[in-house]
Amino acid sequence: MRIEKFLENRAASVNAELKRRIEEIPACHPRLLKAMLYSIDAGGKRLRPALLTASYELFGGNYRRVLRAAAAVEMVHTYSLIHDDLPAMDDDDLRRGRPTSHKVFGEAPAILAGDALLTNAFSVLCGNAGVKGIKAENVLRAAAILARRAGAGGMVSGQAADLEAEGFLKRGAQERRRTGAQCSKAARLLAYIHLHKTSDLITASVEMGAALAGAAPGEFKALSGFARAVGLCFQITDDVLDVVGDKKKLGKSGSDAKNAKLTYASLYGVERSRAAAAGLLKLAHKRLKALPYPAAKMKALADIADFVCSREK
Amino acid sequence: MRIEKFLENRAASVNAELKRRIEEIPACHPRLLKAMLYSIDAGGKRLRPALLTASYELFGGNYRRVLRAAAAVEMVHTYSLIHDDLPAMDDDDLRRGRPTSHKVFGEAPAILAGDALLTNAFSVLCGNAGVKGIKAENVLRAAAILARRAGAGGMVSGQAADLEAEGFLKRGAQERRRTGAQCSKAARLLAYIHLHKTSDLITASVEMGAALAGAAPGEFKALSGFARAVGLCFQITDDVLDVVGDKKKLGKSGSDAKNAKLTYASLYGVERSRAAAAGLLKLAHKRLKALPYPAAKMKALADIADFVCSREK
Repeated sequence: MRIEKFLENRAASVNAELKRRIEEIPACHPRLLKAMLYSIDAGGKRLRPALLTASYELFGGNYRRVLRAAAAVEMVHTYSLIHDDLPAMDDDDLRRGRPTSHKVFGEAPAILAGDALLTNAFSVLCGNAGVKGIKAENVLRAAAILARRAGAGGMVSGQAADLEAEGFLKRGAQERRRTGAQCSKAARLLAYIHLHKTSDLITASVEMGAALAGAAPGEFKALSGFARAVGLCFQITDDVLDVVGDKKKLGKSGSDAKNAKLTYASLYGVERSRAAAAGLLKLAHKRLKALPYPAAKMKALADIADFVCSREK
Repeated sequence: MRIEKFLENRAASVNAELKRRIEEIPACHPRLLKAMLYSIDAGGKRLRPALLTASYELFGGNYRRVLRAAAAVEMVHTYSLIHDDLPAMDDDDLRRGRPTSHKVFGEAPAILAGDALLTNAFSVLCGNAGVKGIKAENVLRAAAILARRAGAGGMVSGQAADLEAEGFLKRGAQERRRTGAQCSKAARLLAYIHLHKTSDLITASVEMGAALAGAAPGEFKALSGFARAVGLCFQITDDVLDVVGDKKKLGKSGSDAKNAKLTYASLYGVERSRAAAAGLLKLAHKRLKALPYPAAKMKALADIADFVCSREK
């Protein structure tokens, strides 16, 4: 099966699960529910749920057993987009080709929709323990991974660093690069942002799939390394697309340039960025090959990695 | 031991735990860490951790075993205060006598500090499974309770309804009450706000203590009913204090009146509110007495309930 078709099928399952889990929340405030569904319905490739389910399947289980966990990780991703788009943050008007949450519902409801998606993600994830074949202790392990990688030791710190770096280029970083100076502070900050803002949740997705399957430490570590490389490759590709990509294809307003953000493309240029992404993709495949499974079994994970690096939107 | 002393001792343990759990977060962005600690250090009575630990102790365990869970519930409470105070929400400048997070750090860092406290609460809670005598399945049960009661089926919906109700009085609810009309919509909305915005997290605290102790369904239900009554009593007392309380004692700027909020005191008047609070306190004690434990064992929970209803700040 071609990867596009695989992702499409997986997204359809995840979308149905997301809708079900959000609509079943008892006593939910109607406008809050509407705002949550609006951002969830905005689509997206559902790469994180695809990675989580593919990682779980590697150990022989049916992916349907971890659809709740897959929905949970997408809810966390969606909350992060809603909060990142807020006027106080990146101040974006468009996301996936549609007006952002705060543009449609207002700022306070958008903050609350994000808060609710984040909190309820853990509710949906905990509910995965009720599924046959899934152990409570493995769900707890997955919840700990999600909280750690999405929280202050992960994604939130990545966003905090991203805001700190805003205007970095304006303050002369670009000039220093041009004169050949090391620019080591910018490089360190950028590495921190990429690792935490993007890679951590992608890594969490793969790790959660492995944890839910009860993976042994060695396999868990190899998969974690694979995911980290994919996550970093994903963000560099994103940075490049923000510069050279067709705005229409991306469906967002190119706020990186607008806000003078510190990105891989702005710091190292497009060509070096592409080379770095290719190197990370190679590393991802290397990590995967370290696992004791035939290539056919790991095809989904390998193909997602290729897809992430070659995507045009 | 007098309840004030009990709460003081318990708060000291919880504060130390909170500091430890937040400072140990690896790779945390320094400014984000500072913002998290600023709001955590602002103090407060730590009523929710006191309720959680007292509920756990009822079943014979040492409260130190659930300090992580107690810290987690306080982190969720603190995040909710940070986000409630934001300019887009209640727009409060003071909280517990100090400038609010967004006044000190800016709006975006305040949003992120709240996001981080909420997410890491689940990380800290999951970590409770590593404590001797605490079962993983009970921690998972506690995490499910926290996520459900703090999320869209609970606290976040309460805040959404609270924002919806803003200006309700201005739009004529007060006039309708004065003319003797039923004002049933306002009453329903207010009941929803009180139940979800305040009572749900207080209920979660007591329920989490019971879940961590492996409480049987009957006892869990009685404790849940107790907590719900305490939570509603807490919010009505808060509404009354916002009208008649000494601003200095409360340490906040009385934003309810400023924003023309729908409160128990504004809808029913101070005297009826006090009577309702007293009725709820009585109900709380009744629920507690339904439990098969001697009064001495339930003293801490009973005293906290009395304290909540009689407090002057």
